[in-house]
Amino acid sequence: MTEGNGKKKMVLVLCSGELDKALACMNIAVGGASMGMNVTVFCTFFGLNAIRKDGVAPAPRKEDEPKRVGLFGARALRRAFAWLNPGGGTYMNPSRFSFVGLGRRLMGYLMRDTRMANLDELVPMAAKMGVKFIACTTSLEALGIPRDNLRPEVTEFAGVATFLAEAVESDVNLFI
Amino acid sequence: MTEGNGKKKMVLVLCSGELDKALACMNIAVGGASMGMNVTVFCTFFGLNAIRKDGVAPAPRKEDEPKRVGLFGARALRRAFAWLNPGGGTYMNPSRFSFVGLGRRLMGYLMRDTRMANLDELVPMAAKMGVKFIACTTSLEALGIPRDNLRPEVTEFAGVATFLAEAVESDVNLFI
Amino acid sequence: MTEGNGKKKMVLVLCSGELDKALACMNIAVGGASMGMNVTVFCTFFGLNAIRKDGVAPAPRKEDEPKRVGLFGARALRRAFAWLNPGGGTYMNPSRFSFVGLGRRLMGYLMRDTRMANLDELVPMAAKMGVKFIACTTSLEALGIPRDNLRPEVTEFAGVATFLAEAVESDVNLFI
Repeated sequence: MTEGNGKKKMVLVLCSGELDKALACMNIAVGGASMGMNVTVFCTFFGLNAIRKDGVAPAPRKEDEPKRVGLFGARALRRAFAWLNPGGGTYMNPSRFSFVGLGRRLMGYLMRDTRMANLDELVPMAAKMGVKFIACTTSLEALGIPRDNLRPEVTEFAGVATFLAEAVESDVNLFI
Repeated sequence: MTEGNGKKKMVLVLCSGELDKALACMNIAVGGASMGMNVTVFCTFFGLNAIRKDGVAPAPRKEDEPKRVGLFGARALRRAFAWLNPGGGTYMNPSRFSFVGLGRRLMGYLMRDTRMANLDELVPMAAKMGVKFIACTTSLEALGIPRDNLRPEVTEFAGVATFLAEAVESDVNLFI
Repeated sequence: MTEGNGKKKMVLVLCSGELDKALACMNIAVGGASMGMNVTVFCTFFGLNAIRKDGVAPAPRKEDEPKRVGLFGARALRRAFAWLNPGGGTYMNPSRFSFVGLGRRLMGYLMRDTRMANLDELVPMAAKMGVKFIACTTSLEALGIPRDNLRPEVTEFAGVATFLAEAVESDVNLFI
């Protein structure tokens, strides 16, 4: 299903918040773009962390928020979640041996040692090569991530309908 | 590879037992059905938990079972596994910060707060919209889940050959 | 996109180091091959563990290695990582309840009990049926896995460009 302009099309869904999955996704995206493919990365749930700014997102006060949820304040809960779920490659753990950040540091060392690009290098590189980053609006709301917490490379905000419309047209379509 | 009736076809494999992956799967399924696609969800391994009734499945006595496995009774082992692996959205943890159910509760609160549908609402909704749920027979046996522990929305039981026959005909095909 | 010889083509990426994902991948590969499909399994990151020899890989001394990384010796770090990341099906944990190897033993028992093939049987079986195993060169380097630590069934070493060239030609393409 080659596009009008003769380019092959690839649509990746990044749903995992694990370093190795995010790296695989970005390496495939960059690989596709460098082979002349038209690449879209649709980030949802914890996959959003790969395209967020480094660190904890603010949990702004909401107008219609209930005061309490069970024993806890509603805003306290959202703040706790934001603190547990920081964005950016620096805070991502690999899917194995994540204990106390040790796995992350070991893998970081191994990657630097082999001169493998890290996540914070791969996302701008991909964007510069024409990869389109879409953030899932439903997930952003559910996880309480404000839109301005996303990296500047993210240019579109959309839902599952937009993703499916692109997916049916694609030649390669992976859920990561 | 549009079907005879002009409908696009989507085949999803749900293999993950994590709340965010199961939600992503069901949201994509519902999204596809509402766009007029023909959708099949093939559940295997821990993905079966998304289409199980809430709670621990019984571990019925088996005819040909050995008395002991190493130090432990064979039935005791199957019971322990059933207890560790309860079904249904209520017992599913997100793929991150699942410690002692805290992540589950935080995410549950955030989802209710943003009026996002939960798993126990999404599965019947999908089925009503025509999504077909298939349970993998090999996984059911290996994990010791009886067929009557599955939700009434599950109408077919099949193996990998049935999945592949559908997958080669599909326009969108994701492994979640 | 049926190939010249009339065979359907399937390309699987195995990126997960979890037992249930690896089993799902190999079962799909074997299923496809037995239906006459042309199957390629591209293993990357922790998915490489499924096609490694059992046990801890050696961490050979490198020529250009720095003496120290922060507080630790560079070679000590690589050795620690190798020890944390043993290869082969025997050491793989399922994606749930992996605590202290209990989940692995329970699942191993259940699988033997239902006569389900384990990973060390499935990989040679798949290879005999014509499934092609490719190991990702970038991941091998980043994780410090020597090539001779891979099983004899692995015949090709390649990067993301090779994977994408096969993926655009495939009828079924899954990221596991």
